[in-house]
Order: sequence, then C-alpha cells, then structure tokens
Amino acid sequence: MRNPQLNANGELSHLLSIEGLPREVIIHILDTASSFLKVSTRDVKKVPLLRGKSVFNIFFENSTRTRTTFEIAAKRLSADVINLDVTRSSTAKGETLLDTVDNLVAMHADMFVVRHAASGAPHLIADHLQRIGRNDVHVVNAGDGRHSHPTQGLLDMYTIRHYKKSFGELTVAIVGDILHSRVARSDINALTILGAAEVRAIAPETLLPTEIRKLGVRVFHDMAAGLRDCDVVIMLRLQNERMNGALLPSAREYFRCYGLTPEKLALAKPDAIVMHPGPMNRGVEIHTEVADGPQAVILPQVTFGIAVRMAVMGILAGN
Amino acid sequence: MRNPQLNANGELSHLLSIEGLPREVIIHILDTASSFLKVSTRDVKKVPLLRGKSVFNIFFENSTRTRTTFEIAAKRLSADVINLDVTRSSTAKGETLLDTVDNLVAMHADMFVVRHAASGAPHLIADHLQRIGRNDVHVVNAGDGRHSHPTQGLLDMYTIRHYKKSFGELTVAIVGDILHSRVARSDINALTILGAAEVRAIAPETLLPTEIRKLGVRVFHDMAAGLRDCDVVIMLRLQNERMNGALLPSAREYFRCYGLTPEKLALAKPDAIVMHPGPMNRGVEIHTEVADGPQAVILPQVTFGIAVRMAVMGILAGN
Amino acid sequence: MRNPQLNANGELSHLLSIEGLPREVIIHILDTASSFLKVSTRDVKKVPLLRGKSVFNIFFENSTRTRTTFEIAAKRLSADVINLDVTRSSTAKGETLLDTVDNLVAMHADMFVVRHAASGAPHLIADHLQRIGRNDVHVVNAGDGRHSHPTQGLLDMYTIRHYKKSFGELTVAIVGDILHSRVARSDINALTILGAAEVRAIAPETLLPTEIRKLGVRVFHDMAAGLRDCDVVIMLRLQNERMNGALLPSAREYFRCYGLTPEKLALAKPDAIVMHPGPMNRGVEIHTEVADGPQAVILPQVTFGIAVRMAVMGILAGN
Repeated sequence: MRNPQLNANGELSHLLSIEGLPREVIIHILDTASSFLKVSTRDVKKVPLLRGKSVFNIFFENSTRTRTTFEIAAKRLSADVINLDVTRSSTAKGETLLDTVDNLVAMHADMFVVRHAASGAPHLIADHLQRIGRNDVHVVNAGDGRHSHPTQGLLDMYTIRHYKKSFGELTVAIVGDILHSRVARSDINALTILGAAEVRAIAPETLLPTEIRKLGVRVFHDMAAGLRDCDVVIMLRLQNERMNGALLPSAREYFRCYGLTPEKLALAKPDAIVMHPGPMNRGVEIHTEVADGPQAVILPQVTFGIAVRMAVMGILAGN
Repeated sequence: MRNPQLNANGELSHLLSIEGLPREVIIHILDTASSFLKVSTRDVKKVPLLRGKSVFNIFFENSTRTRTTFEIAAKRLSADVINLDVTRSSTAKGETLLDTVDNLVAMHADMFVVRHAASGAPHLIADHLQRIGRNDVHVVNAGDGRHSHPTQGLLDMYTIRHYKKSFGELTVAIVGDILHSRVARSDINALTILGAAEVRAIAPETLLPTEIRKLGVRVFHDMAAGLRDCDVVIMLRLQNERMNGALLPSAREYFRCYGLTPEKLALAKPDAIVMHPGPMNRGVEIHTEVADGPQAVILPQVTFGIAVRMAVMGILAGN
Repeated sequence: MRNPQLNANGELSHLLSIEGLPREVIIHILDTASSFLKVSTRDVKKVPLLRGKSVFNIFFENSTRTRTTFEIAAKRLSADVINLDVTRSSTAKGETLLDTVDNLVAMHADMFVVRHAASGAPHLIADHLQRIGRNDVHVVNAGDGRHSHPTQGLLDMYTIRHYKKSFGELTVAIVGDILHSRVARSDINALTILGAAEVRAIAPETLLPTEIRKLGVRVFHDMAAGLRDCDVVIMLRLQNERMNGALLPSAREYFRCYGLTPEKLALAKPDAIVMHPGPMNRGVEIHTEVADGPQAVILPQVTFGIAVRMAVMGILAGN
C-alpha cells in the first residue's frame, strides 16, 4: 500500500503523522522552515505563497493555542483562513465528518488543518480525498487523539537541530505522561528516523504505553538515572485530569518524582537544552526556575513552530 | 409601495426574499454567478471587487455552514469580513437590533449578511436603512425564520438551469417538511417567477403550510404519484426536533413514506436530478445510495452557492 | 520612574490609561485620527500602514462591540488580526497570563489589544514586555476592570473637540454610574489634561467613587442643578446588574432621577451635545427622544472611535 502522506512522486501530499515519513521529506521541511523563519522577523511578515488559497481550520476539539499558530502561519503565507467551530456546526446536527469534508471541498477548499479527539480522523479525511480523486486538497493533522501531533514533532526536531546541529550523537530524554501524549509519540518517531543515538522515556509505569519498549526507547522510572548525560530533555505537560485519577497519587508527589528541578537538570550534560510543548504547569512538571532558566528553549520552540507550519503548508500547496 | 429590495432605478439594493424579485434581476444574478464560478477554480481565487469594503456577518441564529459560505464568498471578493456572534454581544445586553445596526453603520459598514430566527428581521433592517437615508449600505438575508432563504433559492435555480438549461418544460417536486422550510418557500417563489411548468409539494398534511395551494403548487401526499415524471427532485432536511413531536410518528416511519430511495427515484424521469440544501440526514429523508448516486447534484449545489453569493454581493456593492 | 506608556524619546509605546499622558501626545492622537477619518469614507477603506503586522485581540472579558471596533480599525490599517477567545484557551488550562504573552511574542506578535476584568492587566503585560526588552511590541488597553478605557476617553475628546473646537471654556457633565465606570475615569482624566473649565459628576452618592472630589470634579446629586449651563453631557450606561442590587431602588426610580429627558436636557446650553459610550439602555439612563434627537452625537462617537483606534495603532506601530 502506498504511503497515504505521499503522492505518486514521493512528495508530501498530506501531513498525517511523523511515522512513515521518509528522512529526506523531514529534512526538506526543516530546511524550508529555516528560510521561512526570516519572514516573521521582517517589517512586512508576509509572503504571497498561498495568496487566494482557502485554508480551513477544522477543530473538533478546542485548542486556541494550536489553532492560533496555524492561523498565523497561513496568514503570513497570505492565505484566506476560515475557522470552523465544528462543535457548533452541521456535524453537531448529525452530518457525518465526510459529508462536511465533501461540502468544504465543493466550496473549493485547498487545505484542511484538522484537530480531532479521535485518533485517525485526519487519515480518514485524507483517504476520502484520495478516493474521490482530489489530490489537490491537502490535510494537516493538528493533533488527533493520542496518536500523533506531527507539526509539534517537526518543530521539536527543528529546535534540536538548531541547538545541537546533528542527531547522531544525541541522547534525548522524554519525561512525563507518555501514555496520553501525541507529542511523545511524534517525537520518538522523528528522533528514530533522524537517527538519534538514544531516546529515553522517563515516567512511572502507569504513564507508559505498553508498546513503548518496542519503539527502541530505553525506559527509566527514575529521573536521576534517566537524565544522566542527556543532551536534550523534553518535558511533557501533565494533564490536570490525570492527577486526581487512579494513575497518579497527587500533583505534589508527581513533582517530587518527575518534576524537572534545577538539581535534577544538573545531572544532564551542562549544555543540555530543556523543551516543553506548552502550556506549562509550573510547579507540576517543571520548576519555574528551569522554565525561565538559560537551558530552556521553550519560547524558541514556539517561534520555530510558526516557521515549521509555514513550511508544511507551503510545501503541500506546491505539490 | 416601492419594492424594498430595489433602488429607484429598479436595481437590486438588498436581497431580502425571492418573492417580489423581477425575473430579469434573478436572471442577472444567475448570469453574474456564472462568471464568478471560474474565480473559485483559479490558482488565486480572488477578485478585487469588494476590496476595502466591510462586510458584517450578523448571525442571531447559529449556522456555521451558511456563515462559512458567505465568509468565503466575501473573502474571494477581497472584502474585509467581520463575524459578529450576536448571541454574546450588545444585543444580549439589551441593545435593540436597530441600535446595533446604527452602530455598525456608524463604523462604515458596507453590507450586512443577516441570519435571524424571526421572520422579517432583514426587512426591518433594510427599512431602517432607507429611513435614515443610507442606500449605500446593503442587506443580504441569510435565512429568516420560516420566511425566506433567498440565496439558497437562487443557488437552487442556478443548479436547475445548469443541468436543465431552461425552466418552461420542467416539473419540480419539493419533498418533505415544507411547513418549517424557508428553502421550500424561496424555491417555490423562484420557480414560479422563472416559469417552471409544474411545482409539486410532496409531504404529509401535517408538514404543509395552510396557504400552500394558493401558491400554485400541486400537492401530493404520496411519493409514488408525486415523483412520477419529475425532472427535478428537491429533498428537504427533516429537523430532528420535529421527529419525536406530534407532527410525525417516527424517523423510521418518515423514511418509509417520504425518504428518497433508489426505487422511488426510479419513478421520476431517468435524467431527473436530486437536490438537497444540506446538511443531509442520511437514512431519514434520503437513502445514502441516492445521496451518493449519479443523479444527485448536492455537492455542485454547494459550489454554485459560493458563486451565487459572490454574485449577489458583487451586484449589491456595484449598485 | 519612567511613564510606562512612553518610550525613551517620550513617544507613545503603549496606551494603558489617559492618566499620565502628556497633553501633546493626546493632541497628536486626535490630530492623527482626523486624517484617518477620511480613510473610512473612501471607496477602498484601507491604508497599508500595518501591512504584515500581527495584531492580537486578547479579550479575557467578552465585549463583541469593542472587539469589533478594534478589528475594523486594524483591518483598515491592513494588519493581520487574530482574535483570541481567552476564556476557552490555555489560560483556562492553568497557564499564566504572562506565559500566554510570552508565547504570542515568540510568534512575533506586534500588538496586543487587551480587555480584562482585572484593573492593571494591560499594565502588567506592558511591564513584562519592558522587562524582557521587547519595546517593539505594543499594548493597547481596551478596558480593564473599573480602571481605564483610554480609547473611549480619546474618542470622547475627539467628539468634544469636533463639536466645540476647544476645551478651555467648556463645562462638561458626566452623569450616572461613575463608581463602576472606566469610561468616566478616562474622561475625567482627559478633560483635566486638556483643560476643560469645569467637570461635573452627577450621580447618587452610592454610585460615586470615594476619591471623586480629589479629581477636581464638582459633584451634584441633582440633575437640574448639575446640567445647568453645560456644554457637554456624557451619559453613562447603567449596568443591569446594579439595578436590583443594594445600590439602586429600581430602574424606574433611576430614570426619574437621573435619566436624561428632553425636559432635563433643556436646562443645559441650547447647543449642548449629548454623548453616550453605548450600548444604550433606552428608558433607563436616556430617553429615546434624546437618544435620537438633534443634540445627540452618539453615532458620530462611534465613527470617530474607529479613526481614533486607527490613530493609536498607527502611532504605536510607528514608534
């Protein structure tokens, strides 16, 4: 079966997940993002690449932050952006997801940026577009269930490459609620494809997916051991709703064990960088001194995220 | 009394309802839409006709789908579009509708696209604009109560003309909840003005307005009889809230009697087209095989709808 | 301590409150607004001053009307406008206000238009921007708590200057719920800076702030005495939620004492103008005949408000 993300020429046609992306496609996105990074620092922060194109943000799950990053990226490419609040729309009136998609395609949509609580919804849309022969319409997964958040994965790779230049020698630790994190999944896939020397998962057993060891990841339950000699530390957001459930004793206990404090960070390499997909829970998964400290690259991640999303949209529109 | 939709030169000044529109005005809109249809298939889907104009979508009733079509149409005409969520605005704070309108006019609004649960709200606004002497500000009715949905009526006429070329020989059946449908009312008016040979209403007596026979419509309670030899079948959406009320026994029973199945459709002419304003309830008013079948022109309706809305807005702004 | 609204050259860097603005800065804003007033009457209502700039409307408190005025102003300056519904965003997920700001700055935001229920929130953001050395990012206060609503104050000054030419001879009465009004506070400050001859506050004692007399304002509890010989009457909106509280007996009683009727208005100068920040409660604080009468300049206020907001944004972006 052909990779649903690539067209017949092997070019990116949809961005659905990091999994299955050829290394050279990822490198091409990162290189393109590098050129777009300059656009956002110009006096007129715009290029005409998507002028007259209609980009639909279809968010079945509320996420102001992610929607905003895609809206900015699309507007800086000069696209017309239409935000659909799908929780209030026809889909709520009983129309199926694919009927909604068919309608938007009939309105001459060029691109769908899709966020959905169900894993696989963006895939479903991409499959449907192929079935109806509309390979001029593109899908970008903006996060689907626990499955994937590929633009976050890509911006994390951009960030690591920016600070560490290459991946081959790197030890990268991902810390926290890996079980529920689409970010973790995307990062692990991307790091594997780009050839990171070692990827570590640091988490209590209750917050690890069962298949984690099959992904080539080294598992630690102890921060001290897991952080030792790391080049990159990726902290994950702890969802509030996990904290008073059966999975975790308390936020305080979690912070004691898995919160990143200056003391724990000192166990990593002296030039280790600290990343976080945001929004942060200061004092829960990360100490405020670390969040604001010299090793944190959390805000540069946001800046790079705009450039990476511009790159993905620009590449898709060109293919 | 002068037709409130036309200016002193007999040109379109507001689009409030199909009722009362001269035939040549309708034809002019359809012809203009035809030229706009090409804009949406260009690489840069934009014309500068409304550049620097301020179009306000004022939706007193939530309708993501209709708002989206107007937003796309206005943006493809290069207008600045401002969406007002009126359920959360000053009107909710006790300001009257006309005070809201006065305020937006004072902000130099050029056009209002109005959706309201109350019949006549767009008329009220148009009357007010005339009273204050602002005939440079235009109103488009995007659906008011059970009264009218003129752009839907126009896009339906565009669709029929596209597939059937002329109206004089046509038998058109409108099927379903005609009582609560502003679409049915707009379609019946438009078909009468454009001279369709026969307009049929197929519905249970409980879903027919009392005045239906006065509109020159032939009434059927039986699908088999009503569909015979039709050229065009317009299915209406069955509102969920009707189904467990006193008006209808059940969705299942409704589908058995009035749902459009392949078998029933076979009674119409072999080249009959099937239309639906969307969103569809598959398995309630329409069988999924019909919805996706070769006679359905439901998605072309959506495409034509953008062109028709661009035409209406373009014509209004020019007058 | 340096005025947080001005940069090292004494130019406007943020608009946080009228208090503390030099007279010449206010005059410069009003003069600039005067030139922008013409833009909104052109066929193409746009100037390219903010082209490619990213303006974020961050409304922590819902206000469709104020948000709309800023959105129109920014779009007429050709900015990209992104509306953040902060009640549904990361801030609701526990992210701090300043983390949200840091994120948007990392996305290369150029301007924040901030509405917040808490007094001082825009100041907090401006202080933070200075602390992180980002004096290229600007804050406009769109209303914070009971504290300030500077663009409303400025458009009120624009309106008064438009009709009365100069301030030195003017008696201005502000009537109503001064205690809860950020508009009153901004107007009193502006009138003092611009040298109005006399500023009067007409209100029941329960709706007056304790410090009112320190502001150089003459207090009246009686409309007849307070309105006598006034040049300008500024009516304030009575918040519905005050009316059935302990502060006021009833809406009817309030109207009898403090509602502006034609009879009471006759006590002011014959050429006195009547202003209101909107939305009006007709029959509560203002008689409908006065609201629609020849002395009311309430709709011109709205028109001037767009020009003033364009001026503020244009000046900030230039500094």
